[in-house]
Amino acid sequence: MKRIIMISAAAAMWAAAPAQQALWSNVPLKSPEIHPDNTVTFRLKAPLASEVLITGDFLPKQRVNTNRGEVEMPGYAAMTMTPDSVWEYTTAGVLSPELYSYSMIVDGVKINDPSNVYTIRDIATTTNVFLIEGDYASLYKVSDVPHGTVSKTWVPSGKLNKDRRMTVYTPAGYESGDKRYPVLYLLHGMGGDENAWSELGRATQILDNMIASGNAEPMIVVMPNGNAWQQGAPGETAAGFVTPTMLPGAGYDGKYRFEDIFPEIVEYIDNNYRTVPDKAHRAIAGLSMGGSHSFKISAENPDMFDYVGLFSAAVLRELASDPNDPATSEKLRTQFAKNPKLYWIAIGSDDFLYDQNVKLRKYLDDNSLPYKYYESPEGHIWKNWRIYLSMFLPQIFK
Amino acid sequence: MKRIIMISAAAAMWAAAPAQQALWSNVPLKSPEIHPDNTVTFRLKAPLASEVLITGDFLPKQRVNTNRGEVEMPGYAAMTMTPDSVWEYTTAGVLSPELYSYSMIVDGVKINDPSNVYTIRDIATTTNVFLIEGDYASLYKVSDVPHGTVSKTWVPSGKLNKDRRMTVYTPAGYESGDKRYPVLYLLHGMGGDENAWSELGRATQILDNMIASGNAEPMIVVMPNGNAWQQGAPGETAAGFVTPTMLPGAGYDGKYRFEDIFPEIVEYIDNNYRTVPDKAHRAIAGLSMGGSHSFKISAENPDMFDYVGLFSAAVLRELASDPNDPATSEKLRTQFAKNPKLYWIAIGSDDFLYDQNVKLRKYLDDNSLPYKYYESPEGHIWKNWRIYLSMFLPQIFK
Repeated sequence: MKRIIMISAAAAMWAAAPAQQALWSNVPLKSPEIHPDNTVTFRLKAPLASEVLITGDFLPKQRVNTNRGEVEMPGYAAMTMTPDSVWEYTTAGVLSPELYSYSMIVDGVKINDPSNVYTIRDIATTTNVFLIEGDYASLYKVSDVPHGTVSKTWVPSGKLNKDRRMTVYTPAGYESGDKRYPVLYLLHGMGGDENAWSELGRATQILDNMIASGNAEPMIVVMPNGNAWQQGAPGETAAGFVTPTMLPGAGYDGKYRFEDIFPEIVEYIDNNYRTVPDKAHRAIAGLSMGGSHSFKISAENPDMFDYVGLFSAAVLRELASDPNDPATSEKLRTQFAKNPKLYWIAIGSDDFLYDQNVKLRKYLDDNSLPYKYYESPEGHIWKNWRIYLSMFLPQIFK
Repeated sequence: MKRIIMISAAAAMWAAAPAQQALWSNVPLKSPEIHPDNTVTFRLKAPLASEVLITGDFLPKQRVNTNRGEVEMPGYAAMTMTPDSVWEYTTAGVLSPELYSYSMIVDGVKINDPSNVYTIRDIATTTNVFLIEGDYASLYKVSDVPHGTVSKTWVPSGKLNKDRRMTVYTPAGYESGDKRYPVLYLLHGMGGDENAWSELGRATQILDNMIASGNAEPMIVVMPNGNAWQQGAPGETAAGFVTPTMLPGAGYDGKYRFEDIFPEIVEYIDNNYRTVPDKAHRAIAGLSMGGSHSFKISAENPDMFDYVGLFSAAVLRELASDPNDPATSEKLRTQFAKNPKLYWIAIGSDDFLYDQNVKLRKYLDDNSLPYKYYESPEGHIWKNWRIYLSMFLPQIFK
């Protein structure tokens, strides 16, 4: 009997929710509410909860004592229950411009904010997002400018004997015109896929906005799937609605690296899109593992790219400074002998790959191989990669 | 002091969650788990919750007593807490093949299953999905067949003086070939947008699978935004991360209906895609409001479409049988005098628009205007619209 009553209490509350909105001045719960001064209020209706927390990247990370000892965890703060049974939290200060992510924690269960339909998946975790406009973050917003087309399409790999999914951005006017365009190949990191740059990276919005303002040349941007073991993003292949993982799934023989199948992608793009198919009109850039891919692919194909961007690149095992790897060193010298117009390295001062990039720069310096360098605050996070892309675009195809 | 301790308890549990997975045989929580017999188990870790329910379209709707009296609400069932603090629910019986949606309710708060990254938004509500294969539902799965391309692109509207977002499916081989294709214009319902058919409708998968099996002709499918007041789906326009609503937003003057701007879309598609630009190679179909659009657009442009599909169409106000509207009646007679190859009406026997469709069929019967009719069980739901699309495709462009 007790259980039936308990179910009825929870069910009645849930069933009555739409009608109850009438009690709140006829407006649905607004969360997040971005105030004019860029403080933000979050809200959750949860009458039966004992404790509701909010966690997000706008809160500083914290060290917490647990029964496993002290652990570092994302920042969190307690929400406060109002007389309406709505839990609220307003940021202690003004938030600087950024695309932020957050979740709520109801009695220990991490949930998405049911009042906010905007979410982004990062590997197996989905969080809510909101945008504070200004500075770089204004590039992440859909603006009233001409828009490019974003396609999810499939590129055949002869080596892997399968089609593989990729995202292609074509600039505004591509469908209705006959102009040829330069191509940027933009690569994701480990755990990412062909959706990462257009979702977490806001690449579509950055390109639309920067092309419209004249800060970037109109270009095609190809965002392939950089996991040779994977045909496409989780849920987009015959594997079905699998749980996303960071590491390769079972059954991949590892025979070909992504670097090996990459030239097939360039060939397909040049054959089927209106490109300018030469070195001066090709760029490659990537984050983390994608930085490693960009490092190796550009070195292994020295006539392919005039512009290279390494964003928080993982370059340890490929480090040309390693005396055990004269082959890589030789490739790099060949690549630089052909005078690429830009070799751009960017990393955050807190990045766990910082030391690897110090070694890479030392090697380049010691060998008089020219590059440009940008060091940002913070670490291995999308906030930095969106900024790096926004800084890289004005430097290419000029 | 009490508050600090409570926060610590919830935070510690949340922070320790990844490590605690080690206690569960090193596997993350699997939810939903589809068993070989097509029963399904759902799981949620929620040690502090008093009550966890599951709701989904695989459960029969229920009438429940609340403090507002008896209300009809979606079916729900209680989940049971196991000694691991994992709440579980296994379906009472085997689920028939379908793309199902569900949510969990933790102490009255409706949440998405944090173990399942697959969600679909329907207006302002996001729910989890899972697929039981078989029958029609096998068409909703990504299969190992050649894949078409799905593009999010922008079509100019001269009348509205703005670009508007749309989804375009081009069949496998489009990019690499030079063949021309017929075009299906596929329209969403009220509250929907240009993403509805490719997300809730699984149109991409249905087309890939039916074209591969030879049950549908290779075709271009254009899925425009049918809300004249809207440039694109929520979050995809300069309006920003707005809360989705079913009804028109403020500021739209209503000067043009979607039907008025529709011919601009056909002109743009014929000018910029490899179409066969004639009546014999154009079809139009839509659900609910999109059925109304299909009804009116095909009648107002009698030389445009040889194939028309009305899925659960809203046709009351446009009913040609209304003696007060001789103009519509005249248009219908003109349309049918040109002998469209297919006029297909489909609706569920429980649909709230059923009577409207009875009247429409009576008018067509009374006036000897030929059509085909399919009546399914159930009502105004995506399950039916996916089936109707799967039944419509083999009948067009043959």
